[in-house]
Amino acid sequence: MNPANELYDFSGKVILITGAAGAIGSEAARQFAMLGANVALTDINEEKVKAVAAKIQQETGSECIGIKADATNEADLKSLVEQVVAKFGKISGLVNNVGWGKATPLWGSDTEAMVASYKLNTISAYNVTKYCMPYLRKEPNASVVFSGSMVGVTPSPEFIEYSTAKAGLINMAHSMAVASGPEVRFNVVVIGSVDNGDATLEAGYDPAMLKKISDAIVMKRRGTPADIAHAFVFLMSNAASWITGINLMMDGGGMYESKMPS
Amino acid sequence: MNPANELYDFSGKVILITGAAGAIGSEAARQFAMLGANVALTDINEEKVKAVAAKIQQETGSECIGIKADATNEADLKSLVEQVVAKFGKISGLVNNVGWGKATPLWGSDTEAMVASYKLNTISAYNVTKYCMPYLRKEPNASVVFSGSMVGVTPSPEFIEYSTAKAGLINMAHSMAVASGPEVRFNVVVIGSVDNGDATLEAGYDPAMLKKISDAIVMKRRGTPADIAHAFVFLMSNAASWITGINLMMDGGGMYESKMPS
Amino acid sequence: MNPANELYDFSGKVILITGAAGAIGSEAARQFAMLGANVALTDINEEKVKAVAAKIQQETGSECIGIKADATNEADLKSLVEQVVAKFGKISGLVNNVGWGKATPLWGSDTEAMVASYKLNTISAYNVTKYCMPYLRKEPNASVVFSGSMVGVTPSPEFIEYSTAKAGLINMAHSMAVASGPEVRFNVVVIGSVDNGDATLEAGYDPAMLKKISDAIVMKRRGTPADIAHAFVFLMSNAASWITGINLMMDGGGMYESKMPS
Amino acid sequence: MNPANELYDFSGKVILITGAAGAIGSEAARQFAMLGANVALTDINEEKVKAVAAKIQQETGSECIGIKADATNEADLKSLVEQVVAKFGKISGLVNNVGWGKATPLWGSDTEAMVASYKLNTISAYNVTKYCMPYLRKEPNASVVFSGSMVGVTPSPEFIEYSTAKAGLINMAHSMAVASGPEVRFNVVVIGSVDNGDATLEAGYDPAMLKKISDAIVMKRRGTPADIAHAFVFLMSNAASWITGINLMMDGGGMYESKMPS
Repeated sequence: MNPANELYDFSGKVILITGAAGAIGSEAARQFAMLGANVALTDINEEKVKAVAAKIQQETGSECIGIKADATNEADLKSLVEQVVAKFGKISGLVNNVGWGKATPLWGSDTEAMVASYKLNTISAYNVTKYCMPYLRKEPNASVVFSGSMVGVTPSPEFIEYSTAKAGLINMAHSMAVASGPEVRFNVVVIGSVDNGDATLEAGYDPAMLKKISDAIVMKRRGTPADIAHAFVFLMSNAASWITGINLMMDGGGMYESKMPS
Repeated sequence: MNPANELYDFSGKVILITGAAGAIGSEAARQFAMLGANVALTDINEEKVKAVAAKIQQETGSECIGIKADATNEADLKSLVEQVVAKFGKISGLVNNVGWGKATPLWGSDTEAMVASYKLNTISAYNVTKYCMPYLRKEPNASVVFSGSMVGVTPSPEFIEYSTAKAGLINMAHSMAVASGPEVRFNVVVIGSVDNGDATLEAGYDPAMLKKISDAIVMKRRGTPADIAHAFVFLMSNAASWITGINLMMDGGGMYESKMPS
Repeated sequence: MNPANELYDFSGKVILITGAAGAIGSEAARQFAMLGANVALTDINEEKVKAVAAKIQQETGSECIGIKADATNEADLKSLVEQVVAKFGKISGLVNNVGWGKATPLWGSDTEAMVASYKLNTISAYNVTKYCMPYLRKEPNASVVFSGSMVGVTPSPEFIEYSTAKAGLINMAHSMAVASGPEVRFNVVVIGSVDNGDATLEAGYDPAMLKKISDAIVMKRRGTPADIAHAFVFLMSNAASWITGINLMMDGGGMYESKMPS
Repeated sequence: MNPANELYDFSGKVILITGAAGAIGSEAARQFAMLGANVALTDINEEKVKAVAAKIQQETGSECIGIKADATNEADLKSLVEQVVAKFGKISGLVNNVGWGKATPLWGSDTEAMVASYKLNTISAYNVTKYCMPYLRKEPNASVVFSGSMVGVTPSPEFIEYSTAKAGLINMAHSMAVASGPEVRFNVVVIGSVDNGDATLEAGYDPAMLKKISDAIVMKRRGTPADIAHAFVFLMSNAASWITGINLMMDGGGMYESKMPS
């Protein structure tokens, strides 16, 4: 028997994933379900998240449920957690994946837009995690992973609202980690340029830009949702049972360009 | 003549400082005024900031003005900048110093408290900087410095609202830096444990804690407002005219404790 | 079928591991062999490395070979690579694991001891990688992983020779990464306090120290060789095919202790 | 009186500077001498370092001495420190500035070249600091600063010997810092692209490259030796008496290039 089976066996686990109608969230749901987990998918887009859940359940045989919730609404998140527990009886892992930001002129933001971005990208993760914690604490190798972003660890004037909020998110995840061990582990996947389907184009990119970005990445391609989902699975798995408080950089080596011109 | 005179001569400069009624802000104001700058001090505490400004003017002979503004109110900040320009005709430098956070149980926060902390610690700096930029761009060696915090670069579950917001602030400052050169420089002083008078005790510390903290710091003392103000002065000065986008760590070496028990 | 099988299937791969007679190296060898890889183990201790190789082959059925080489001897490393290729015809992955350092008074070192540590901990990895590169470049998803150390990323005056050399190693690995994509990936596992058997005690620790260290780690235990080997396997696997140039911190959250006394 | 006078008054201090015949080292010597310090300059180039010392003494009136020493020779460094103490009676500060590296193909190095670079760039600083420590410990606000390099904190495959050694140096400086407070402070100036005269061209750059580098820097210019010397002076001064264990990044914001193509 391949021993990876055991380390990556999620049978009997229940994983909650936010932003699960999108490219990364839905691929993560699919991978956890393939590995035996029951998965609760949530998104503000009710129709889509329910369709995604149904499709994954059909494909994998694991029980999946799609639940509508507005991640910026604390009451929705409280209700979400209650629904997951009512359905599955427990929560073994949480993927704080919801988030989004658009390109903005550096000085083109204001209080309202900054607050909206913080609610969506940062506070949402605080709230849903807070409601999950009583359940996570009861489970072995309980774990929370976050969709961080490279814009939160490098200067990103093009995404001032989003990058500022994501920097907060990453620090928040580390704070949660150090106060929650050894019961619950918290880790961040710091995501670089990933082909996130429509969400990427809506954020302000165009195909020519994306080609330039690919060329600048050490691995000569942008990431796929599957790459990111693999990282979530690793961090949630028994293979990572000693890992907490880390940033797992997923950027294809894209951080770097030599400063020595050729 | 001591050549430091020239590098640290702020005659004819106008420096705007937020949170200027507090220990660090008022000491920064005093130092810039001693070096010849005219200083605009702002704070939500009108009585105190006007008294501080008057005292520094008397002590130094530099022209100082105290202006009331609520840093969480965008209209107040717009008006603040207009008042400074009306008074002094220009803005040469900005010290984004306002901010505060209190100890909180990790899971004892909520959306409202997180937003309030973000407005005070992060968005305030965005807004006041935005209104200053048209003036800063006209001045030689124009520079913005930020009061960052060690809680924004290390996990700090005891200050979840504040540390998350400060992490955002630091990333935001770097984003501003890379998009604003070479005209305007942006740098962060990352502040460790500093004797900030009443504000420290109000944040949840007591004297026994503070003694323990001093003992754990490499330099065997907590910082003084003067230590921090020296860093602001350096970063604003001609000595630092090539420096932008950096974190200047001011923690007395306090980040470190050996993991090898004695 | 469990899809982890496919991502973690190393059948037909050849993995070379240095320092393979020790606790971490031999466990890594065992895990790769369990997942189907043929493994070349090397160590300066010939008797032990041959015994370890034989035992793993018996346990796993994968072909394993033990080869003596002194990692500080460039000619030995050249010959090592030739022997591996002669035996298996290719090299798919390399684990630069060899290294060791002992506690020393900060000012108790000298040129000779510093050079010896650099040869063992840093240059060894450069040399063996250099000789492997022509073979690695021919293989799909070729990958090199390094046993980094937390002492290389934090101040570690107790291990001045070792920590200085390990800091060099980590930077060197990143340099290799950015110049070698997309053909060969390079990543570092930054190892915290791991139960490395006798090697730990020989480095200068005693059981009372180790208990204190465990208590200070967020996960409330020191790492096991298996924890570290899981990280190597992940970084080598198809699950990590977009990952290069990263530090994967494996320290049980041990980097952190709250600075706010209770 | 300008209060910067007092903070930056080095009268009665004795500063030892290695690599002092070069552009950065000699400018640092000049600045410290201008501020009242007596300066001991050392370099392997005896004729040049004596000429530089004589010129600075003439210009500033401070007593300056040029001493030949090979920084890779431990006995030379021991003798150097003895000569400085014999001449001036004490050592108040040390600038570990010596170092150099040339562009090399990534896989074009070997054990000998790696060791030579480590001796020059890393061990030299260990040895000279070791011999200075008994004298530094007796002086108020004693301080050691290091010429770090951006290649030691970013991947730099073009300078594999130098970047690896410089990464070791930076970690070593931090180790020294945490073990030496509060008596002696240790800080690193992490130097980006600086116009270092002939040494720059000898390292493998040409004017077209240098133009490209300038354009990529946020401040739109390469640094000058004076920029770096200002940072040394700040870190040595009374203004920085609480600062230890830090990296002061001096790169003109050059670390960053936006990943979002225009």
